[in-house]
Amino acid sequence: MQQRSEETRSRIVDSAVKLFSTSGYNKASVDDICAEAGISKGAFYHHFKSKQALFLGLLDGWLQTIDNAIEASKDKTAPETFMQMTEAFPYIFKTAGEGLPMFLEFWLQASRDKKVWEASIAPYRRYHRYFTSLIKKGMEEGSFVEVDPELASRMIVSTAMGLLLQSLLDPKGANWEKVARDSTELLLHAFLKE
Amino acid sequence: MQQRSEETRSRIVDSAVKLFSTSGYNKASVDDICAEAGISKGAFYHHFKSKQALFLGLLDGWLQTIDNAIEASKDKTAPETFMQMTEAFPYIFKTAGEGLPMFLEFWLQASRDKKVWEASIAPYRRYHRYFTSLIKKGMEEGSFVEVDPELASRMIVSTAMGLLLQSLLDPKGANWEKVARDSTELLLHAFLKE
Repeated sequence: MQQRSEETRSRIVDSAVKLFSTSGYNKASVDDICAEAGISKGAFYHHFKSKQALFLGLLDGWLQTIDNAIEASKDKTAPETFMQMTEAFPYIFKTAGEGLPMFLEFWLQASRDKKVWEASIAPYRRYHRYFTSLIKKGMEEGSFVEVDPELASRMIVSTAMGLLLQSLLDPKGANWEKVARDSTELLLHAFLKE
Repeated sequence: MQQRSEETRSRIVDSAVKLFSTSGYNKASVDDICAEAGISKGAFYHHFKSKQALFLGLLDGWLQTIDNAIEASKDKTAPETFMQMTEAFPYIFKTAGEGLPMFLEFWLQASRDKKVWEASIAPYRRYHRYFTSLIKKGMEEGSFVEVDPELASRMIVSTAMGLLLQSLLDPKGANWEKVARDSTELLLHAFLKE
């Protein structure tokens, strides 16, 4: 039963990604998604409260590769954790690819609804807290020079968001995955003790 | 005559900013902007080819403070140029303030029109070229360590765009102007020779 439910959920998600990319976020209705997935509306609402909740679920799924890399390097040093994270980059940048209009439509809707908005920016706040503690850990274990952990974390999150934004705005402007990997090394270098 | 034309232009721009912020980019029509500015449609189209052209003009005006800082530090060293640029930050972050929905609406429209799109991302490509040459200059004058100028420039532009994006997404999440100033110093420090 559990397995069938999981299958239905991922069928909904796959159909939504397909329709959001082709028709756009606004045009693709819950009805369309159900038809594409071959499921009932009841089944849809069993898994997701709304189309917005589904999109937030997509976002979470997309960030899961980063979270997995973080989880996998729990017992490693802070510099090792940084390098581990680069393994999520190919997936992240490949998926972001042509998704700009879909993201813009979603953010525009979200910006008009305080509750959805708070949920939408939760991951970015979570990463800020995470990198703040990772920098602190690096200083405590003696790998990193003394910096303001809050500021260092803001810089890391800014670089990441700026790279993602550029890969959306200008997908062919650079090999963004490589730029992201090189930037990680450069940032890491700035924090490392000689 | 020249002066009166300039006055009309800035009246159009002020009215557009007001209407885009209150009604949104899509809802505010050229008619609305003319009525608000108290000018004829003919006068509008004398200055701007379209509403999109007007928005691109706004964007350029907004970036002008950065361009002015760059221009003002033509004869200075690369590190001095970086510090000079921070003087544009208060204006930049104050103006970005509550503009998120307006930006999103514009970008969404622009993303559907190849020509507008190219014009919209031109400034960001221009800054990439500029910072690449600034980093080269810093290395030649002996202020900066040897880095890949392209990569260093990508990092600077990423950080800037990431900070701007965060200030739009989460205006109250931090003192973004201060974070931007501190980040500039930290980046500069990473490039400086000991």
